[in-house]
Amino acid sequence: MFQMNAWYVGARSDELGTRPLGRRVCGLPMVFYRTGAGQVHALEDFCPHRGAPLSLGTVKDDRLVCGYHGLEMGCDGKTVAMPGQRVGRFPCIRSYPAREHHGFVWIWPGDPELGARTPLPEFEWLGNPAFAYGGGMYHIQCGYQLMVDNLMDLTHETYVHATSIGQREIDDTPCRTQVTGEHVVTSRHMQGVAPPPFWQAALRMNGLPDDQPVDRWQICHFEPPSHIMIEVGVALAGRGGYEAPDAVKAASWVVDFITPETETSHWYFWGMARRFRVDDPELTAQIQAGQGRIFAEDQDMLERQQRNLLAWPERSLLMLNIDAGGVQARKVIERRLAAERIVVTA
Amino acid sequence: MFQMNAWYVGARSDELGTRPLGRRVCGLPMVFYRTGAGQVHALEDFCPHRGAPLSLGTVKDDRLVCGYHGLEMGCDGKTVAMPGQRVGRFPCIRSYPAREHHGFVWIWPGDPELGARTPLPEFEWLGNPAFAYGGGMYHIQCGYQLMVDNLMDLTHETYVHATSIGQREIDDTPCRTQVTGEHVVTSRHMQGVAPPPFWQAALRMNGLPDDQPVDRWQICHFEPPSHIMIEVGVALAGRGGYEAPDAVKAASWVVDFITPETETSHWYFWGMARRFRVDDPELTAQIQAGQGRIFAEDQDMLERQQRNLLAWPERSLLMLNIDAGGVQARKVIERRLAAERIVVTA
Amino acid sequence: MFQMNAWYVGARSDELGTRPLGRRVCGLPMVFYRTGAGQVHALEDFCPHRGAPLSLGTVKDDRLVCGYHGLEMGCDGKTVAMPGQRVGRFPCIRSYPAREHHGFVWIWPGDPELGARTPLPEFEWLGNPAFAYGGGMYHIQCGYQLMVDNLMDLTHETYVHATSIGQREIDDTPCRTQVTGEHVVTSRHMQGVAPPPFWQAALRMNGLPDDQPVDRWQICHFEPPSHIMIEVGVALAGRGGYEAPDAVKAASWVVDFITPETETSHWYFWGMARRFRVDDPELTAQIQAGQGRIFAEDQDMLERQQRNLLAWPERSLLMLNIDAGGVQARKVIERRLAAERIVVTA
Repeated sequence: MFQMNAWYVGARSDELGTRPLGRRVCGLPMVFYRTGAGQVHALEDFCPHRGAPLSLGTVKDDRLVCGYHGLEMGCDGKTVAMPGQRVGRFPCIRSYPAREHHGFVWIWPGDPELGARTPLPEFEWLGNPAFAYGGGMYHIQCGYQLMVDNLMDLTHETYVHATSIGQREIDDTPCRTQVTGEHVVTSRHMQGVAPPPFWQAALRMNGLPDDQPVDRWQICHFEPPSHIMIEVGVALAGRGGYEAPDAVKAASWVVDFITPETETSHWYFWGMARRFRVDDPELTAQIQAGQGRIFAEDQDMLERQQRNLLAWPERSLLMLNIDAGGVQARKVIERRLAAERIVVTA
Repeated sequence: MFQMNAWYVGARSDELGTRPLGRRVCGLPMVFYRTGAGQVHALEDFCPHRGAPLSLGTVKDDRLVCGYHGLEMGCDGKTVAMPGQRVGRFPCIRSYPAREHHGFVWIWPGDPELGARTPLPEFEWLGNPAFAYGGGMYHIQCGYQLMVDNLMDLTHETYVHATSIGQREIDDTPCRTQVTGEHVVTSRHMQGVAPPPFWQAALRMNGLPDDQPVDRWQICHFEPPSHIMIEVGVALAGRGGYEAPDAVKAASWVVDFITPETETSHWYFWGMARRFRVDDPELTAQIQAGQGRIFAEDQDMLERQQRNLLAWPERSLLMLNIDAGGVQARKVIERRLAAERIVVTA
Repeated sequence: MFQMNAWYVGARSDELGTRPLGRRVCGLPMVFYRTGAGQVHALEDFCPHRGAPLSLGTVKDDRLVCGYHGLEMGCDGKTVAMPGQRVGRFPCIRSYPAREHHGFVWIWPGDPELGARTPLPEFEWLGNPAFAYGGGMYHIQCGYQLMVDNLMDLTHETYVHATSIGQREIDDTPCRTQVTGEHVVTSRHMQGVAPPPFWQAALRMNGLPDDQPVDRWQICHFEPPSHIMIEVGVALAGRGGYEAPDAVKAASWVVDFITPETETSHWYFWGMARRFRVDDPELTAQIQAGQGRIFAEDQDMLERQQRNLLAWPERSLLMLNIDAGGVQARKVIERRLAAERIVVTA
């Protein structure tokens, strides 16, 4: 079951070229494409003529032309034309609200009217010239909630990412979880710790010494359906930590847009938005490559966790203090799902 | 459900060497082999001893010898011998009528007595020295009826084969479908059109100019169970089109033998039989390679169409005028299937 | 259904290094690991915290540390510690009796108390300096009983291994099957036959002529759950055969430990223990490579036999005299399975 009435990232803008892109979102096979003016659209990936996937077609004159027999589909899901045919009575296909915004294609798989009047989520770093952004996408064979759990409990860094961002003090420092409406925040502040390799590099990039104790923070923000933004950073120890002036710290947003594909797979859009040396694209590429390597370390663990849960469906998992972020996020998700069911049966 | 009482192409002759060949036809695992005199046989691919596939065995003294423990099977499905055993009471396996004819191995998966007295289908080009033939086989992951639809509506050439045989005028020219008994014919005649690249090449091969308008035709003949022969060609414009003298045209049969493997896969035997420069094997190889590339373009479309239809089983497809050939072919198939059911329950 | 109360080979010792090893035995996902003193342990491959596979973790201070969030598991399946947590009420996971003995890791998937008081099976060659051993492991996609059948009827050598150990006289020489309690023995003695290539090589290695007639024997010993030890050898003809003095023969144990993974797959631990030139590791490697090639020939046959049996579940197989060994072994297995069911319901 998926939260349908929500904006999801369907694709990175640079995945969508002049050819349509087929992708399943919340169980629904969709095709994304851009019209000539650059407007993105999303439709069911199903030609009403013979069921061919429209994503194998082309865009011509703002219409999505089926690559099998040339049916021309409008962006509202109504067939506009087909060679030699009257198309007035052709069945419609579903059209999904879709918007492109600062490098992401957003999709609303649920009620289109509600989507049309719901603004896209906003993020401090998104479209903000004070930040530089780099990221990527991984296709992961586990349910999206396991990824939410993963990102709301960063003690896993010590084990899964031992050689880059993990350190023992993460385990030793309790985290705190707060829920405000549908916003779940789990935060951890470490003081006077040695920076692990990834943060040593970030300190150097920022012109700061990498061999001094630092204060380090992780503040994970969940909001539905499954967007997780994590404030991460280090500051030279004793200079205010999270509140320290920019000159003595290296700080970033870790960006995680998690889009369900099926009950046991999702599209994971990850990235980092940093506030230092924002005009250095080489640095952006370097950070992106490093983050990509680190985040790939989660994939095998999550996919094998999923297989284990399918093999032992009757077992319940523990919900420890470190899991509070994921537990609270799941409660928010459950309320959303329940609310959508009520709407449906009303 | 398959039409069982019919001759299907099970293999091209050159697929069947001195070793047996295992292949599933109409859902039935079969083994094909040749005895010393060159006679082909088809049996269930199941050794009555321990269930090993006989297709892993060898042929010796006109017997199919199981590669596991040496059981020797006769071409009638009765065990002939086995080292150290009395085989008189061994259970039989099914034997299927099989014949080899001009480069094809034909198989009858249904009632063997009916098969024994039913002649193979005949085709103008088959075994006719006035024609040169080249072809190949593709294993395609969609039900065979989707391939029948594909070949009975050639408007897809404009889209799927845009760079070789497609042209806009196919869409613009209505087709006509006629049914005579179990024979369905869909034909289209275009006049005064520019030849697309494949036909330009064919005109050159035939010593004709490739920059002149031509009349072009496509005449698709379906007959059960799923043989589709397509008359295709171009003639210099205004010289009689399909009826023009050989000297001013390039004409061929497109050959399509479609053999179901499972409900969602089939063996596609494709080829071309031409009436020009028939003594030029290099030209045959060249045309075969070009046709192979073109027909491979259908595979992805058909396989993804199949996946879409499985994902949306409740949706009905449109049946437009261009689909009339496929629709009529399906009616013939339905009547055949119904007739076989009646026989079974009588 | 599996015989649970039995010792199975779970791994070769050299598969288990410093990292844990995940492997499914009798349907149960297990993790094997060694503590510092070298003691092997086997647990459910499931972290009670979030269901991650413990086989992705590490061993530290004799504890298995989960690679996801650092839970520390004891060898009894009770959580010992976890950073920042009280673990006293954490649910336990199953611990399986496990022992390492002369190069093999043995696992008992059933009742642990019964396992604790059941000695490991003993074999003449195992840990005996009079023998040299080499072997390997294959992961085979068929039920383990098909492998038992395979090894208890060596007439298949003539067909599956025609170029190495097969020879017509195997077929021509009747075998004899005896059952003593749960011990099934099928034996065959050939007299005055030409040695096939594998045995020619063994004779040469032993300093004996390879162009003389030999007496050859195969004595297959099955004992539950699925261990098959085969005495094989050749002696110069007329010198006593199986009873001939060592100086005129080449003799070995073929070792087959068969460990079920799922109903349709198993782990096949094969090897050879020989009594000649036991101090020649190069010879051991050479024999191991040759045996590996021969035993790989069975894989395709067995896996395709399994697929055939799944496709025709209603068909019964023949039970000929040559199959008596497998048939009797299955009877022993059936009695074991029935006995385990009675225990469960008592």
